[in-house]
Amino acid sequence: MALIVHKYGGTSMGSTERIRNVAKRVAKWARAGHQMVVVPSAMSGETNRLLGLAKELSPELASDDILRELDAIAATGEQVSVGLLSIALQAEGMQAVSYAGWQVPIATDSSFTKARIQSIDDSRVRADLAAGKVVVITGFQGIDAQGNVTTLGRGGSDTSAVAVAAAMKADECLIYTDVDGVYTTDPRIVPEARRLHTVSFEEMLEMASLGSKVLQIRSVEFAGKYRVPLRVLSSFTPWDINIDEEARSGTLITFEEDEKMEQAVVAGIAFNRDEAKVTVLGVPDKPGIAYQILGPVADANIDVDVIIQNVSHDGKTDFSFTVHRNDYARTLDVLKNTVLPHTGAAQVMGDAKICKVSIVGIGMRSHVGVASKMFRCLSEEGINIQMITTSEIKTSVVIDEKYMELAVRALHKAFDLEQETT
Amino acid sequence: MALIVHKYGGTSMGSTERIRNVAKRVAKWARAGHQMVVVPSAMSGETNRLLGLAKELSPELASDDILRELDAIAATGEQVSVGLLSIALQAEGMQAVSYAGWQVPIATDSSFTKARIQSIDDSRVRADLAAGKVVVITGFQGIDAQGNVTTLGRGGSDTSAVAVAAAMKADECLIYTDVDGVYTTDPRIVPEARRLHTVSFEEMLEMASLGSKVLQIRSVEFAGKYRVPLRVLSSFTPWDINIDEEARSGTLITFEEDEKMEQAVVAGIAFNRDEAKVTVLGVPDKPGIAYQILGPVADANIDVDVIIQNVSHDGKTDFSFTVHRNDYARTLDVLKNTVLPHTGAAQVMGDAKICKVSIVGIGMRSHVGVASKMFRCLSEEGINIQMITTSEIKTSVVIDEKYMELAVRALHKAFDLEQETT
Repeated sequence: MALIVHKYGGTSMGSTERIRNVAKRVAKWARAGHQMVVVPSAMSGETNRLLGLAKELSPELASDDILRELDAIAATGEQVSVGLLSIALQAEGMQAVSYAGWQVPIATDSSFTKARIQSIDDSRVRADLAAGKVVVITGFQGIDAQGNVTTLGRGGSDTSAVAVAAAMKADECLIYTDVDGVYTTDPRIVPEARRLHTVSFEEMLEMASLGSKVLQIRSVEFAGKYRVPLRVLSSFTPWDINIDEEARSGTLITFEEDEKMEQAVVAGIAFNRDEAKVTVLGVPDKPGIAYQILGPVADANIDVDVIIQNVSHDGKTDFSFTVHRNDYARTLDVLKNTVLPHTGAAQVMGDAKICKVSIVGIGMRSHVGVASKMFRCLSEEGINIQMITTSEIKTSVVIDEKYMELAVRALHKAFDLEQETT
Repeated sequence: MALIVHKYGGTSMGSTERIRNVAKRVAKWARAGHQMVVVPSAMSGETNRLLGLAKELSPELASDDILRELDAIAATGEQVSVGLLSIALQAEGMQAVSYAGWQVPIATDSSFTKARIQSIDDSRVRADLAAGKVVVITGFQGIDAQGNVTTLGRGGSDTSAVAVAAAMKADECLIYTDVDGVYTTDPRIVPEARRLHTVSFEEMLEMASLGSKVLQIRSVEFAGKYRVPLRVLSSFTPWDINIDEEARSGTLITFEEDEKMEQAVVAGIAFNRDEAKVTVLGVPDKPGIAYQILGPVADANIDVDVIIQNVSHDGKTDFSFTVHRNDYARTLDVLKNTVLPHTGAAQVMGDAKICKVSIVGIGMRSHVGVASKMFRCLSEEGINIQMITTSEIKTSVVIDEKYMELAVRALHKAFDLEQETT
């Protein structure tokens, strides 16, 4: 008997028919002798519907008082889901009980719409499990010290599930989603992309942050911090497939370095076309200049990703960084209005039509020449590299957006990530 | 400066446009210097939508475990409403904060789907009012001692509003609804029906229980118990009418006997066609027979309204009572299968095509001959009276359903309840 946490996304909860299938799947696991905690998202479309109503009433949704109300409203989507799933489980003959985040309670800070989980009191849940009940807990939300409902932000249900699994020291947390695992890259771009049976936590973190949409990055961080064994698998396989087969499907995210890893040096290719590049030309190269440039950008609440400072010539240097494409125009404004006049830099340039392509692999730690193999591959395809940034287990390049698919396909082939022929 | 509670029904909250109007009306009251607590219902249709989803998952919604989930689901309708109204108030430039029942908290017993309010802790609300905020509280719901969400049943938002007003000793509780007050009878049946400027609590209680749909009966009981001045008024008058005019509109439900009452002996005519009549013929007239008949009916969870036992002839009597029409077939079954064999009664008869018409008036206490005037009026119209029941301030008759409109119109005229000519 194991303690298992299941998480189901909004698509899996999208209709009463689908909720019934979720209930049948959970019941199968419970009947196999497992203690089951289930964390469902809101029915697909529901969160957007609720936030849409709020927006009709106040286009400006910024003040803390309004964000508090937004969270109270948005949190109801999951509250409906847990109630419906609990009823569906009871209709399947199971004992089941649902809790909203505040009932568990899942304690968070007070950062409305992007709260962080601080602690989870699992005593109530444990008592229910001991009594033979399936426990259904709302994703996406918690309660702050003042008794306000908070939400964790988009994709927060993944984080909730992992946090619950961590607090309860669950044997495994299964994330049921609309893809059947983590792939070497997006199969829509590379049809030969191969599903990974296992991926290391660090690789997954890089894959998630670099644009793979499978798991919310904060949930991966959480899983890493508390070493929660995490499996991503498909909610579209029939609910009644053999449970052992289901338990081995998808992709397992592992934390044990000495577990048998797949042999490839590079685990996958990630990419992201949500970024834009800006360059400040002719910056006087003196201490504090990076802060003088990036300080006003941070003050404008703009996140910066890749940062490159070239070597200087004649006491001047060029300073480039990337931001989210939605922040591109605002970033240019900040640089022109605030940074240029104060730094004596010559000019600001930018390009929104870029993308970032990365190779990720824990094997890069111990293998030399991986990055240069990447650069050679891109060079052979005639793709110019605009920026480079590296970490211990990844190398990212910024290139012209139009070469993205070409780069991903070429790299996927160069690093032998194609479909295994069995 | 007064402490005022506003309650808005689902129709008044039916769209963001209407919610904006509610916010403007509340803001007007707050700007006039009043401390404002607002209790809105769920947006119209929302509770039915939510319960419909639950029913798709489990046609059988009976067990306590399922009712608990139903309450958690249904309660979200009002949770969305308070958040939206709070945002709309903030968009109007007011400070506003919303609370779900569990946050106030509004403590109830654990009777899911029909919980009763036990106590309200108003400290949090008072602090907000003192800080100049409008406080928006969910109707329809509370929290039990185990931390479960409960609902008060249909129309429960009226009760919530009155309970909050009682707990806070509000100066007045204004129930905004889709009618502009309490009428001498239903204007759809008697076009000359006149709106009452005041009605006594006891009359209102009889009117509500006898079929006037204006206010939920439990809210009237609550108002009576705690002497909450209650006003029913229209949410369809423009939000920007003069506030003094608005404060005098609708119908005030009063508790002071010595307040100037309207002079009519009879305040109004109530009617109800939701009932059915059953008669057990040839019942041996001996002690305990009423219990032998009604015991099994109560055991089947069937509510009995009017009960008549005729005088006996030859040691046998006839025993008649009315039940809700939905329970009619089940009642006949109980009587035939359980009561007939055990009591030695001769036969069971029934009639679902009946209605109950009542005259209600606190003046009936001190005026004789009111009932006989009612009977004469019906007799002159050729309407046969099947059953009669009376209380201190009302007289009800059961008649053939087809005479209902005729009876109501004739009585309305006989007791001079027509529109005042000014």
